[in-house]
Amino acid sequence: MAPPAQMCHVNNGDLNAAAVRMVMKEAAPPHSASLLDADEFRRQGHQVIDFVADYYADMCSYPVHPSVTPGFLRSALPKDAPSRPAEHDAFAAALRDVRDHILPGLTHWQSPRHFAHFPASSSTAAALGEALTAGINVVPFTWAASPAATELEMVVTDWLGKALHLPESLLFCGGGGGTLLGTSCEAILCALVAARERKLDEIGSKRIGDLVVYCSDQTHFALRKAARIAGIHRDNVREIPTHRDRMFALSPADLGAAMRADADAGLVPLFLCATIGTTQTAAVDPVRELCAVAAAHGAWSHVDAAYAGSALVCPEFHHLADGADAVDSFSMNAHKWLLANTDCCALWVRQPALLVAGLGTEQEYILKDAAAEGHDIVDYKDWSVTLTRRFRALKLWLVLRCYGVEGLRDHVRAHVRMAAAFEEMVRADERFEVVVDRQFSLVCFRLRPPPEKLGGEKAANELNRSLLEEVNATSSGPYMSSAKVGGTYMLRCAVGSTLTEERHVTEAWRVVQDRAAELLGKMEITNSVVA
Amino acid sequence: MAPPAQMCHVNNGDLNAAAVRMVMKEAAPPHSASLLDADEFRRQGHQVIDFVADYYADMCSYPVHPSVTPGFLRSALPKDAPSRPAEHDAFAAALRDVRDHILPGLTHWQSPRHFAHFPASSSTAAALGEALTAGINVVPFTWAASPAATELEMVVTDWLGKALHLPESLLFCGGGGGTLLGTSCEAILCALVAARERKLDEIGSKRIGDLVVYCSDQTHFALRKAARIAGIHRDNVREIPTHRDRMFALSPADLGAAMRADADAGLVPLFLCATIGTTQTAAVDPVRELCAVAAAHGAWSHVDAAYAGSALVCPEFHHLADGADAVDSFSMNAHKWLLANTDCCALWVRQPALLVAGLGTEQEYILKDAAAEGHDIVDYKDWSVTLTRRFRALKLWLVLRCYGVEGLRDHVRAHVRMAAAFEEMVRADERFEVVVDRQFSLVCFRLRPPPEKLGGEKAANELNRSLLEEVNATSSGPYMSSAKVGGTYMLRCAVGSTLTEERHVTEAWRVVQDRAAELLGKMEITNSVVA
Repeated sequence: MAPPAQMCHVNNGDLNAAAVRMVMKEAAPPHSASLLDADEFRRQGHQVIDFVADYYADMCSYPVHPSVTPGFLRSALPKDAPSRPAEHDAFAAALRDVRDHILPGLTHWQSPRHFAHFPASSSTAAALGEALTAGINVVPFTWAASPAATELEMVVTDWLGKALHLPESLLFCGGGGGTLLGTSCEAILCALVAARERKLDEIGSKRIGDLVVYCSDQTHFALRKAARIAGIHRDNVREIPTHRDRMFALSPADLGAAMRADADAGLVPLFLCATIGTTQTAAVDPVRELCAVAAAHGAWSHVDAAYAGSALVCPEFHHLADGADAVDSFSMNAHKWLLANTDCCALWVRQPALLVAGLGTEQEYILKDAAAEGHDIVDYKDWSVTLTRRFRALKLWLVLRCYGVEGLRDHVRAHVRMAAAFEEMVRADERFEVVVDRQFSLVCFRLRPPPEKLGGEKAANELNRSLLEEVNATSSGPYMSSAKVGGTYMLRCAVGSTLTEERHVTEAWRVVQDRAAELLGKMEITNSVVA
Repeated sequence: MAPPAQMCHVNNGDLNAAAVRMVMKEAAPPHSASLLDADEFRRQGHQVIDFVADYYADMCSYPVHPSVTPGFLRSALPKDAPSRPAEHDAFAAALRDVRDHILPGLTHWQSPRHFAHFPASSSTAAALGEALTAGINVVPFTWAASPAATELEMVVTDWLGKALHLPESLLFCGGGGGTLLGTSCEAILCALVAARERKLDEIGSKRIGDLVVYCSDQTHFALRKAARIAGIHRDNVREIPTHRDRMFALSPADLGAAMRADADAGLVPLFLCATIGTTQTAAVDPVRELCAVAAAHGAWSHVDAAYAGSALVCPEFHHLADGADAVDSFSMNAHKWLLANTDCCALWVRQPALLVAGLGTEQEYILKDAAAEGHDIVDYKDWSVTLTRRFRALKLWLVLRCYGVEGLRDHVRAHVRMAAAFEEMVRADERFEVVVDRQFSLVCFRLRPPPEKLGGEKAANELNRSLLEEVNATSSGPYMSSAKVGGTYMLRCAVGSTLTEERHVTEAWRVVQDRAAELLGKMEITNSVVA
């Protein structure tokens, strides 16, 4: 990549001139004309739309993951912001910079060949919803600060909750309620702080060091991060081991034993984080049974359905959330697999008053609206880590409004179908195995271990690590990620990009097979040489 | 407002049909065609751009704050999401809904007559930067997950830090470094957790209940919220009183006395949050002296410059950050007054390793890039509350790239000039007083208290509260907010909307004068009747 010499000019401005102009009180040009002029916005905005549309149309011409080395962009850019842009049309020049220098250095999450991590599924409605939100740029931290924004968030979290068949006790229509945050980390942290404050009110705030949180060894790091932030003692996060014979789901018996042991030791069970669709293998914890155990110990139950929560939109997956009527809080990322673009995490709680007690504020300078007096008004600033917040409801409303619940079901089912097809292809090739039965659109697979004399299980991890590296290094190939569960390294093929079609999945499998054949061929040569 | 009956149709779908279709494995239509088709995106995107441009052009036709009652939108919308949208062009219909039903219920923060709270200043570059970010939709939680996004964030936080004349020790080029978060609440929380973990490593983690944080009675609630979340004992947040004769700045002597008293009582001073530009009156704490006190007690110093940090772009304000070379962390909201649209909070830290120690993770399933091995790579997931994050650097880079540092100075100075003009008008009217000397673009003022026999200071607060209500109720008038400091209620006129011009400020003052004359006239009648 050539150094983007024109990306902006290094020149820190003539401070003296500015100072002189200030002293002279010389009139500056009307600043609004250039910064937020309707006609300029229209002209440049159409450029951006065409830019993004062209990006989607050309998506397949980019390798999913760039071949760049650390520092490639930092070293190419000037050390300082420009004093004044050098070009007449700086915005058009900047768009060229994005095309020539930034896009080639991105990992293209919207590529139909992006199968890594979990999807960040985009849709036209959500992407344009973000554009609309940014254009309108309101800050709905209280009802009064933008009434329609707050009310739309209340409406759309109820809509989504019903579409996912959540119990009404978690929705406004049933006495609970939902909010839209950035990520699951925030959602879990908010729930944990609400739980912690309730518990400390009971047992006395000096005992914060006695509180214990519970999860499985498959739970997302978000729980540990939230526990750390919330001041839970580092030794008091119980990561209960899971096993392959239970599909890596958290065992209620093991949870019960852990809670009992802690209670016996004078500690206080505080918080359970169960998962529907774990990060590594999309395992599903048995929500009803786990909640019963937690309730028996007075602990708060949270369900993290960051990825697989989207699947609940389909009736055939509803049973996975059986028991959700017993949870205290539930979160899922509509930006992962439900077309809502990053970021959009929905959090529902059974008792909003506990959230407000943990996170709320009352201050004189916050405008109260006379109209709001005495009404059942939500001030969302008291439901989250932050006060300032974006109007995320608009894009989620657009997604539900424009595609409908059936449209979302079509979307989820298309990916499930493609993943099933991938899984069948893996099973049909005897060199490979599916390590964990697929439930959603994630397939975890690996090359079977070589014979014991050639390293067996021990060699299998290195072999599959090499396979992933080779697959990801294939120009115009798929991009996948890995998991290591119970000591077993596996490749993860997470179908979920909106642009992915069956041909991309078939082609991805062909690349995996080809790279595997090369690897196994090399091994055979090496082994025969050694022999 | 008419009920938006067409906003979407209540119909929860025919589950049986869907189930049957699944069983039959009937092919659904290619879902990508409708959800992220380049041509459809282009067509609908141009509609959105025109919609937003029209909104800016028509901005003055909206009252800044809507006359709506709680529930106005909730009761008008269907209880469920549509099963399928009823219209042929659902997106165009949705945009009509936004125009007819949502926009009229918003508080228009971009109105040139919005003078409440602090500004949420928009610009074309940032609004379109958000559109671009949403379109590209990458998730740069690690360097490998989108190298150019991480590197651009490193570049642009250095650019911004230099533009604000921050010490190099807070920038990557000087061994520190910056990141872009959502809000100041997150920034303060991240700094506080880093400080807490460092301190607990020293004194033992059992002593979390002994940690004390310090601020003034003017510090934003964000600090108290962060302290609550981080598990600091509720009794251990010292809100040190400020006084009008020190312009409501935190006194280093008072801070020292508070820290000493706590230390003498066996508690542990942990964290100071100093402010440049407080929420109520834009007071500026003396950073250098406060940091010296904090350092003497081994406490972490954070500076919250959420609003006024933007002013540091102008040399004439640099002295306000004197002493910033002694802080451990510094944050400001580029989305408030620096044209970066919500949300964009920059946090810089002197020792990034402490952030990572407090918030970091290492997990097998996170893809490491071979290219990154052994390099000085930032994985921003370890710098914040969240793992998933948006590519915020793109819009901030566009703002700096397209307007340049001088363009930002012009923008800030234009608002400072307008606020100075407003202040002069207040001072020229003997019925009013400026309560706190203006430093930036915020004017705090009130009607002078009536004579003692008519209530004096006590009546003044009610009088000014009524004045604010009357001003805000004026159709096509300005929208302001209030503060109450040292028992004194005052109106706040915060100039900062990008579209605000001098005529809007002049007109706002005329409305204030007119409403005041009416109020004072009514009072005179009442008083003469009573007499």
